[in-house]
Amino acid sequence: MSRFWSPLVHELTPYVPGEQPKSNTLIKLNTNENPYPPSPKAIKAIKAEAAASLRLYPDPNADQLKAALATYYNLDCQQVFVGNGSDEVLAHTFQALLKQQQPLLIPDISYSFYPVYCSLYDVKHQMIPLTDSFEIDLQDYQKNNGGIIFPNPNAPTGRLLGLSTIEALLQNNQDSVVVVDEAYIDFGGQSAASLVPHYDNLLVIQTLSKSRSLAGLRVGFALGQSDLIEALERVKNSFNSYPLDRIAIAGAVAAIEDKEYFETITETIIQSRQTLSDSLQAMDFEVVPSAANFVFVRHPQHKAEQLASALRKQSIIVRHFHQPRIEEYLRITVGTDEECKALIKALQLILGLEQA
Amino acid sequence: MSRFWSPLVHELTPYVPGEQPKSNTLIKLNTNENPYPPSPKAIKAIKAEAAASLRLYPDPNADQLKAALATYYNLDCQQVFVGNGSDEVLAHTFQALLKQQQPLLIPDISYSFYPVYCSLYDVKHQMIPLTDSFEIDLQDYQKNNGGIIFPNPNAPTGRLLGLSTIEALLQNNQDSVVVVDEAYIDFGGQSAASLVPHYDNLLVIQTLSKSRSLAGLRVGFALGQSDLIEALERVKNSFNSYPLDRIAIAGAVAAIEDKEYFETITETIIQSRQTLSDSLQAMDFEVVPSAANFVFVRHPQHKAEQLASALRKQSIIVRHFHQPRIEEYLRITVGTDEECKALIKALQLILGLEQA
Repeated sequence: MSRFWSPLVHELTPYVPGEQPKSNTLIKLNTNENPYPPSPKAIKAIKAEAAASLRLYPDPNADQLKAALATYYNLDCQQVFVGNGSDEVLAHTFQALLKQQQPLLIPDISYSFYPVYCSLYDVKHQMIPLTDSFEIDLQDYQKNNGGIIFPNPNAPTGRLLGLSTIEALLQNNQDSVVVVDEAYIDFGGQSAASLVPHYDNLLVIQTLSKSRSLAGLRVGFALGQSDLIEALERVKNSFNSYPLDRIAIAGAVAAIEDKEYFETITETIIQSRQTLSDSLQAMDFEVVPSAANFVFVRHPQHKAEQLASALRKQSIIVRHFHQPRIEEYLRITVGTDEECKALIKALQLILGLEQA
Repeated sequence: MSRFWSPLVHELTPYVPGEQPKSNTLIKLNTNENPYPPSPKAIKAIKAEAAASLRLYPDPNADQLKAALATYYNLDCQQVFVGNGSDEVLAHTFQALLKQQQPLLIPDISYSFYPVYCSLYDVKHQMIPLTDSFEIDLQDYQKNNGGIIFPNPNAPTGRLLGLSTIEALLQNNQDSVVVVDEAYIDFGGQSAASLVPHYDNLLVIQTLSKSRSLAGLRVGFALGQSDLIEALERVKNSFNSYPLDRIAIAGAVAAIEDKEYFETITETIIQSRQTLSDSLQAMDFEVVPSAANFVFVRHPQHKAEQLASALRKQSIIVRHFHQPRIEEYLRITVGTDEECKALIKALQLILGLEQA
């Protein structure tokens, strides 16, 4: 608290990301990182970019990366926006497109950064409860609004909405922007990117942090018709001309282009998720159906917070949210098969199920 | 223009950075990049960080980099803020500290991004004319204000304010924050960082883009007492938890720690600036005294815009601003000695001074 702060700063309740421990002896299943390394081609491209040319500014428009993404999603470069992680892309989206006269609609259980952006940019908003089974009910969004945003698959639940449902939402809300935050879409969902040419009110946001194993590089992007992208560019160019460094651009291009590696690791994670879900269910956990690289689970006989703390004692970190409606749940990242086995073994011990 | 844009977006006039040509056959003296490569230790650290660990998020607080900067400037870690280029640090500063009831004071000739931030965050401001010799006159800042910001050395003029003048400004403005933007301070000025422990209203902002040859890596930082830094952290943590990627952190730490290399290249540039200034004066250019890695010059007989365009035809890019009071000036980055010689030769040709 200080007399020098702007009035806004006093009102902020900043987002708190999941713990990033400095020790690497822990099994880290708390922030949905990919358990597999980035594409070897991305690593190679990054090393090649570590050169004298770092003295020069990057391309402020990251045209090469926009072109790679446009090719991948069969869109034009003018339909692609890139930023320093999807968090930056989201922040610009709130300021450029979601700050309107009518309130923005947000599911009550979703990415907890959304209300923080609302407070940063003074965006009117209304939280819309998910159903008891954590689903989005389209009827609940049939009201005047200045925009709609939700993750698909949803976080932290993992539940997926199909494209036909998203299309219905777009058709029912033709006067406001619908933002589909697809951080986890590559683990079993179908991207709404294919709808971009057909709906001028759709913005799709993705990240390279999850399915491309590049959380450490900070690259996110948005796909939408050129009018929406231009709004993001105008804010970006009033904030920071060069949000992506040379190395991030080079690594991201190579990662997007290496489709084969991407498909192999995402397929592996999808299979591991199934095995993990089965094992958890065998231990009486309720597992919400997940299309993401995490599972959202509760145990009818054990408090989630106590389970998280008992796992932590066994050097395994999972995510627990102190938040109404979900405080009995744990969000567990799908790790390698070895990590998943260690988790199951630790839980067996904690629940007293271990075979002697 | 689109019905989906927030009202703010319609009002924005984004900043336009200097041209970043994709061809590298040009002699690029237009965006004040360092002509020398980054420290070999920084390149090595970057390559080492290009590894499997990129799948993990970076440290959201970049503690290692804060520690390196705190050591370098003899401050505490709580007195250091880091961001994705000094442009991001500046943006957060406008929102966190400079948006006040009273107007922010800005020199009329300075970094042209400042008024853009004002428009992005709706910050009241007043442009204060520099004197005819492009100097800041302290008397002009003796008025009610919600903050003061200026580059030191100033850009695009290159003129330096001494620490005693800055101290007078801090003493005369104890109720508002004074931001000293030191992008170019290492080329001959004395940083106000040493004043941080003594003035709770001082924020110093720097970048690794210029003196550390890392424009392509995007790292900037702020130094100030912990109250001011906390305001920046609160905004940062409401915007993007992980603004600096793992590679940027690693490269920046190594660059800050390699003091010897830094001193060698900045000293070289200071000497080249002197030689370049002498040569330009010998051709009747008026050269504003510069403490930066650029010179700001005009020729009494030749239009700046025409000179810039004639240089461009000879594959040399310099910066010309279409802006009242300075449209007869060119801002020329101090390149390598070879690049400076090529510039002088090209100008001799253009001015008809070339020896037969």
